[in-house]
Amino acid sequence: MASATTPLLADDRRNSTADSEDDALRGRASSNRSGPAWVFRLREVLLFTWALLATAGLLIMAVWMSHKSQTDISKPTGKRNLVFMVSDGMGPASLSMTRSFRQYTQGLEYGNTLTLDKHFWGSSRTRSSSSLITDSAAGATAFSCAKKSYNGAISMLPDHTPCGTVLEAAKRAGYMTGLVVTTDITDATPACFSSHVDVRSQNDEIALQQVGDGALERVVDLMFGGGRCHFLPNTTHGSCRADDVDVISIAKEKYGWTYTDNRAGFDDLWEGRLEVPLPMLGLFASTDVPFELDRRNMSDVYPSLSEMAMTALRALEKATQDSNQGFFLMIEGSRIDHAGHYNDPAAQVHEVLEYDKTFQAVLDFLDETKTEGVLVATSDHETGGLSVAKRMSTYPVFLSCIQKIIATDNSLELRSDYPEYLWYPGVLANASSSSEYLAIKLHQHIASSAKNGTSKKDLQTYVNDELVKAGLGVHDATDAELAEIVSNPEKAQDLMAKIISQRAEIGWSSHGHSAVDVNIYSSGGSGTDAIRGNVENTEIGDFLRNYISVDVEGVTEELRKKYQRRSKTAAF
Amino acid sequence: MASATTPLLADDRRNSTADSEDDALRGRASSNRSGPAWVFRLREVLLFTWALLATAGLLIMAVWMSHKSQTDISKPTGKRNLVFMVSDGMGPASLSMTRSFRQYTQGLEYGNTLTLDKHFWGSSRTRSSSSLITDSAAGATAFSCAKKSYNGAISMLPDHTPCGTVLEAAKRAGYMTGLVVTTDITDATPACFSSHVDVRSQNDEIALQQVGDGALERVVDLMFGGGRCHFLPNTTHGSCRADDVDVISIAKEKYGWTYTDNRAGFDDLWEGRLEVPLPMLGLFASTDVPFELDRRNMSDVYPSLSEMAMTALRALEKATQDSNQGFFLMIEGSRIDHAGHYNDPAAQVHEVLEYDKTFQAVLDFLDETKTEGVLVATSDHETGGLSVAKRMSTYPVFLSCIQKIIATDNSLELRSDYPEYLWYPGVLANASSSSEYLAIKLHQHIASSAKNGTSKKDLQTYVNDELVKAGLGVHDATDAELAEIVSNPEKAQDLMAKIISQRAEIGWSSHGHSAVDVNIYSSGGSGTDAIRGNVENTEIGDFLRNYISVDVEGVTEELRKKYQRRSKTAAF
Repeated sequence: MASATTPLLADDRRNSTADSEDDALRGRASSNRSGPAWVFRLREVLLFTWALLATAGLLIMAVWMSHKSQTDISKPTGKRNLVFMVSDGMGPASLSMTRSFRQYTQGLEYGNTLTLDKHFWGSSRTRSSSSLITDSAAGATAFSCAKKSYNGAISMLPDHTPCGTVLEAAKRAGYMTGLVVTTDITDATPACFSSHVDVRSQNDEIALQQVGDGALERVVDLMFGGGRCHFLPNTTHGSCRADDVDVISIAKEKYGWTYTDNRAGFDDLWEGRLEVPLPMLGLFASTDVPFELDRRNMSDVYPSLSEMAMTALRALEKATQDSNQGFFLMIEGSRIDHAGHYNDPAAQVHEVLEYDKTFQAVLDFLDETKTEGVLVATSDHETGGLSVAKRMSTYPVFLSCIQKIIATDNSLELRSDYPEYLWYPGVLANASSSSEYLAIKLHQHIASSAKNGTSKKDLQTYVNDELVKAGLGVHDATDAELAEIVSNPEKAQDLMAKIISQRAEIGWSSHGHSAVDVNIYSSGGSGTDAIRGNVENTEIGDFLRNYISVDVEGVTEELRKKYQRRSKTAAF
Repeated sequence: MASATTPLLADDRRNSTADSEDDALRGRASSNRSGPAWVFRLREVLLFTWALLATAGLLIMAVWMSHKSQTDISKPTGKRNLVFMVSDGMGPASLSMTRSFRQYTQGLEYGNTLTLDKHFWGSSRTRSSSSLITDSAAGATAFSCAKKSYNGAISMLPDHTPCGTVLEAAKRAGYMTGLVVTTDITDATPACFSSHVDVRSQNDEIALQQVGDGALERVVDLMFGGGRCHFLPNTTHGSCRADDVDVISIAKEKYGWTYTDNRAGFDDLWEGRLEVPLPMLGLFASTDVPFELDRRNMSDVYPSLSEMAMTALRALEKATQDSNQGFFLMIEGSRIDHAGHYNDPAAQVHEVLEYDKTFQAVLDFLDETKTEGVLVATSDHETGGLSVAKRMSTYPVFLSCIQKIIATDNSLELRSDYPEYLWYPGVLANASSSSEYLAIKLHQHIASSAKNGTSKKDLQTYVNDELVKAGLGVHDATDAELAEIVSNPEKAQDLMAKIISQRAEIGWSSHGHSAVDVNIYSSGGSGTDAIRGNVENTEIGDFLRNYISVDVEGVTEELRKKYQRRSKTAAF
């Protein structure tokens, strides 16, 4: 009965019971000619299915793309942890030196790189508001406040008003906060996150503010590091305070800190696997924690950077497990900088290796934890003007060029005297002590032997056997080198660092900082595209506050009001 | 007449003429009850429109996403140009120094950075197969062949067999090719793209291979730079060849090169706006093109790097306008390295600025041209162990730390003697000549005054007035400094570079190369994600061949066969 215009598909079913149901659904659209109506219906269903599928596809794609682009947007979508690592004084050359040292000592191929290398992200310009070469205070203020300030400033602006820090704002927003360092906890980098003073040398004031005795009261939940001497009253052995304030007692009694000052106390925390009472203050050294090169030979009296970092991560994770907010933790490889100041390459490679190990440990933690998190790491500046090369003799090829240019005859030589470029990581591998440790040992030896009396010849033998051979691993020190140490024991540290640097063909151009851009490393993740490429150090500060979306400006406002009020009543 | 179940929208139009048209279209689907049928129709149209729009949206999104992901894939989809820039000897510190110098001299804010800074892409590890510190030959072999080799190797492998280069493979694939440098065109970097010899000092052989007299015949279409002396027979004034081979004549007669050796010949090309006859050989200096600092004061006798690069870009673009293949151009800022070898910071900042200007010019070209293209730039190694800082006096703060650690009393000082970190770009801005230029001037003065006789005192006055004050811009040279130059004129270049470095507080630790990782810069674009982060220098070589999808291994095979054949018949 199908007419010529009836779709073939409809033919056999046009009188089926399905039509009656369709009719009922269609209401008055039903007609005697049920065939064509059914065709309409099928067509409609097909069209509807097509439209629905296409729309669903569109929606899925849109959601997926929005998700993709959201991973590049810095606004948080939920609970977040932020770990910021600072390699104080580590410039680009420290990486090349440490990478080759590791490959040499472990017999690895050239492609076997550091964990840091695998997470290279960009580079940071470092100048401060007062100088083309920054110090650690202005450098850390750029991270903590995201503002340029003068060398020496501890989260203070050039107009000497305080600027809120990302750590303070994080605390205000409900995050837990921590600081882990290997130098004094009152040193510039940790100080900039947790205190505000005009000049970095105000360690006494910084210590007080860090435990809670500042304008904002307590903002830090965990501090691990050295610098105990700034917390003890000057009536106590081992204090370096100018006053008799007992910061440890204030911390414990007024602000509820749990305090430990030794390895046993640290071990009681079981690397954070047990509950860590917060706020927790662990000051494991009077000033600096010893260089890693020395520390590992000291029967584990001091915890390492990676041990302290892992304990802090686990403690902060446990403390925030029932919270809507995560934590902010700053971890500093503080003494890479000191090895640079001392021009000691053997000490430095082990500091960088320990920092690299810590970086890997943080990555592993972020991988394992359920909370979204990001790791960003950078340096405040380079220290030492390190060059992994030293060739101070005038370059013969290029000198001959001048002759060539002004020569008028044809008797020019070929450039056959091309130099060998080398440096010797094996020299660094032979060292078992830092020049710092050996200098202290020398001073102690001189002090003790002063009672019994010792000849210059005996002292030179001691220096060669006990320090240079046993400690530096150098067996060919010249008489002149040894005599210079004996005659100038106050310069022993520099002279021993020079002995090892020269033999390794490592060059230094300064005992201070330099202006070279420093590297940025990251786990990657939400918003980290903002700090790819070459950025200003303050842009790293911007990233930190943006990642956890905290109101740093609000803290600045609060600080300013409190500072104005105080300055009206008393000198601050 | 609408029933309760008739859609409202249909009410007023159910008897309109439109229905009749609809009916005609519907054929037998038309019924007396035109109202409901019209509703079907409308519903169908709406459904169809919905389905169509959703499908269109889906298609657009799919195409857009496929386009997005295709930009990360390294396989070419059409004609491509590849520009590779090499900043020979430019390490990370050169950037910080030049950036601050530019900001200082032009009165710019700290955020006003170099073009290079804005295109920072990653960093490259540089060691060679024979040394932890590479030379330019092994460095360029990593780019040209994407293989590690020994220092001195010109696209030869450690087993002394030749490796095909990206330029050779590009030529075989129908690309046009060019080399632009400011040193000898036979120097290591350009040589590695266009020749194969065991040791870089074989300039005579390199020159021959470059014009076409090698195993692969001619592979380069355009060469601009210096090093004319290697192309002239030793029977000619201005030659530095060991033999009497006239490479220019061979180039012109056997391989069809157009040759120019002067500015007038360069100007005749109108910066590539007119037709440039290819192959084109422009050798504008006997050896090196003078440093940019000197060149710009020489009445434009020599073309600058950016002038040569722009001319080359336009010439190669014109030559490929009717081709399915684009071009490969290598541009080298060759003498950044020389300024490093000489430890001359004033010469270096101007070399880097000219390189930066050239980088911008290439970016502009890529923006304007219709052909897809990528710019990648990197260094082969650092030279000089440059530090933008010099503080050789022992660091007082840290020396005092030792005292503190071993002290047992409480009389410790505060760290109030924190140092000022500074360097002085203004010193570099005062220089109007390089130490190289001034040393040549001194040698010429001594040579000419030798005829007439001159006293040491007169010479010292000349050195101070004509060289140190007029050229270096230094007005406080000490008697000792000046006397040293007069007594050691063969060291004048080093001594003058030292005068300016010390006053600017710029440190150098070597007259050779160093091992620090070097920066990578890029325009971004297809496949460039492969060289983000920290990569081996050979990975940059991999990128080059992948971007233009050329068969470098095929060229290696061809070379090996030819070399085996030759070595059977004669020494090569």
